[in-house]
Amino acid sequence: MPTRGQVIRCKAAVAWEPKKPLSIEDVDVAPPKAHEVRIKVIATGMCHTDWEYLYQAGKATRLRPFPLVLGHEGAGIVESVGPGVTKFSPVRRACCFHRANTQVGVMADGTSRISYMGQQVYQCLGVGSFSQYTVVSDISLAKISREAPLDKVCLLGCGVSTGYGAAVNACKVEKGSSCAVFGLGAVGLAAVMGCRAAEAKRIIAVDVNPDKFEKAQMFGATDCVNPKDHSRPIQEVLLEMTGGGVDYALECVGSPAVMTAALESTTDGWGTCVIAGWTETETMSVVVEKILMGRNLKGTYFGDWKSVESVPKLVDDYMNNKLKLDEFITHNLPLDQINRAFEYMKSGESIRTVISLW
Amino acid sequence: MPTRGQVIRCKAAVAWEPKKPLSIEDVDVAPPKAHEVRIKVIATGMCHTDWEYLYQAGKATRLRPFPLVLGHEGAGIVESVGPGVTKFSPVRRACCFHRANTQVGVMADGTSRISYMGQQVYQCLGVGSFSQYTVVSDISLAKISREAPLDKVCLLGCGVSTGYGAAVNACKVEKGSSCAVFGLGAVGLAAVMGCRAAEAKRIIAVDVNPDKFEKAQMFGATDCVNPKDHSRPIQEVLLEMTGGGVDYALECVGSPAVMTAALESTTDGWGTCVIAGWTETETMSVVVEKILMGRNLKGTYFGDWKSVESVPKLVDDYMNNKLKLDEFITHNLPLDQINRAFEYMKSGESIRTVISLW
Repeated sequence: MPTRGQVIRCKAAVAWEPKKPLSIEDVDVAPPKAHEVRIKVIATGMCHTDWEYLYQAGKATRLRPFPLVLGHEGAGIVESVGPGVTKFSPVRRACCFHRANTQVGVMADGTSRISYMGQQVYQCLGVGSFSQYTVVSDISLAKISREAPLDKVCLLGCGVSTGYGAAVNACKVEKGSSCAVFGLGAVGLAAVMGCRAAEAKRIIAVDVNPDKFEKAQMFGATDCVNPKDHSRPIQEVLLEMTGGGVDYALECVGSPAVMTAALESTTDGWGTCVIAGWTETETMSVVVEKILMGRNLKGTYFGDWKSVESVPKLVDDYMNNKLKLDEFITHNLPLDQINRAFEYMKSGESIRTVISLW
Repeated sequence: MPTRGQVIRCKAAVAWEPKKPLSIEDVDVAPPKAHEVRIKVIATGMCHTDWEYLYQAGKATRLRPFPLVLGHEGAGIVESVGPGVTKFSPVRRACCFHRANTQVGVMADGTSRISYMGQQVYQCLGVGSFSQYTVVSDISLAKISREAPLDKVCLLGCGVSTGYGAAVNACKVEKGSSCAVFGLGAVGLAAVMGCRAAEAKRIIAVDVNPDKFEKAQMFGATDCVNPKDHSRPIQEVLLEMTGGGVDYALECVGSPAVMTAALESTTDGWGTCVIAGWTETETMSVVVEKILMGRNLKGTYFGDWKSVESVPKLVDDYMNNKLKLDEFITHNLPLDQINRAFEYMKSGESIRTVISLW
């Protein structure tokens, strides 16, 4: 590898400050340190959390430092590895993902590997995949099939794995059960797909945007409900539809009000509500009696997958047509048009936009 | 039975209005209707929920009608049975308990069986055990060993079963795990006992009244913590004591602030918080990120026991010295001194007062 041990200069989309579009810059990506891997990023999804980090930065309860390279759902090729890395070698394909408790924007040693004109640029969730090269911890990386199309399987780095795992791992949806999925973005549609894979009998898809319903049905929804069509709270509508509440509710929005509605749409006695929608800043209200009546409120991070082992299997499932990914991708953009992906997201017209880095 | 099919006149402690002491009155107890059983109540515990129904009645979110016979943790002898009752016959011993979703103060047909001078008197949680006779639904009743001392096993009708089951059923506390129990009344001490039975390695008992600590240690607590001894929030103290949080937290108070503290004292990744303390009126705050990091919030009603089958087994466990009950009983009173039991409860000097009806 001619670049091994060298700083690599490449293109990256840099967020210089909150609420401003990203700028394409020439950044420097340092060689990997111990237990780190430098990745040539081929493709990356854009996740709602990227938008939140940029546009909701002021609401953060913890420091979100700038300048920053966003992106935490990438796939690429190993360029070089740092000392102590035994599981990866150059030219292997890899999927990058964030991990719980990653330090804010930096690697384990407290610094990032990306810089611009000597100034440190932070890496979102320890990844920073909106860059042609990035360096990640080897525990944020899965070695995947060398045939896997990177512009599809990048989605397994965050959203699709989170929603699918929320249903099959965190909820442990059972055959013949009833489910409600709140929010029909990539996480929610993947949750619908997970409920379907688990052979739920009834899968009620809930969104205020009816344009999402056709896709939800394609992923397995049996009913679609728009809260705007009802004057009553949505939980009352679902309790009536199901004669007492669903067995499983999945919140895939990240809104405290929706979380409360999801919890209250489950049945007394054993209803389980799993929160898969992300927010770092909000507090939800729980009417204690709803919990006392035997409900269960859980959260999930990355769909409760053991990422290093599970992501390669999910990639194989996709390759074997057991898992849909193509259907989540509504838009493709090159890196220099990345800001349009935020527009598609906020207008509700995209499910996932995949960014090609090369 | 000379009384079978007849109205029985007997003594009962009647709550005529909120926040006033109970009055001992001569009430009339009608014969049982279909699927009901009339019980000669021998002994009953007084539970914090009885106090709450009387003294916090104004805060209720649902109707709590008066006049009312409180008491829902009783044991007695079957006097007679209504049509369709096959599992009970006179002179068998029985333990009475409340059930989830019992109509407020009445039986399945919407009326109560207790009256005073022709005026309907409601029965707390469908039981009303502060009466020498009461009528309960046969699904609120367990047939128990004929040797069981009723003035002890009455506690299995609510508090002790709830706390013990919160640990062994709802939390499913595992051998070698770490636990924290918030609130050291009967429910909390029973939770400590359950953690101990499940062979938890560390059991941290938390209460603002240090007089409870000696008993907590007797039931199996390894550490006792008084939040008043610390200037920091109690969850921070527990996170530090355990190097990141307990595996299981049990809330046995019924206070939303304590519920939040209990949830936040569990570990990222898999911490489980079970709410066993009762409140019908309150809402708790949940910082969503705490849930997203893999915590689990559950409630339990009656310790997740299948009451009709489980209570007789718990009685047997007590008879075989596998379960403590005597240690919960700090006071015994006859029915005509029942108001003193509320005083002992509010001063914190009692764990459980058992009322003898005869």
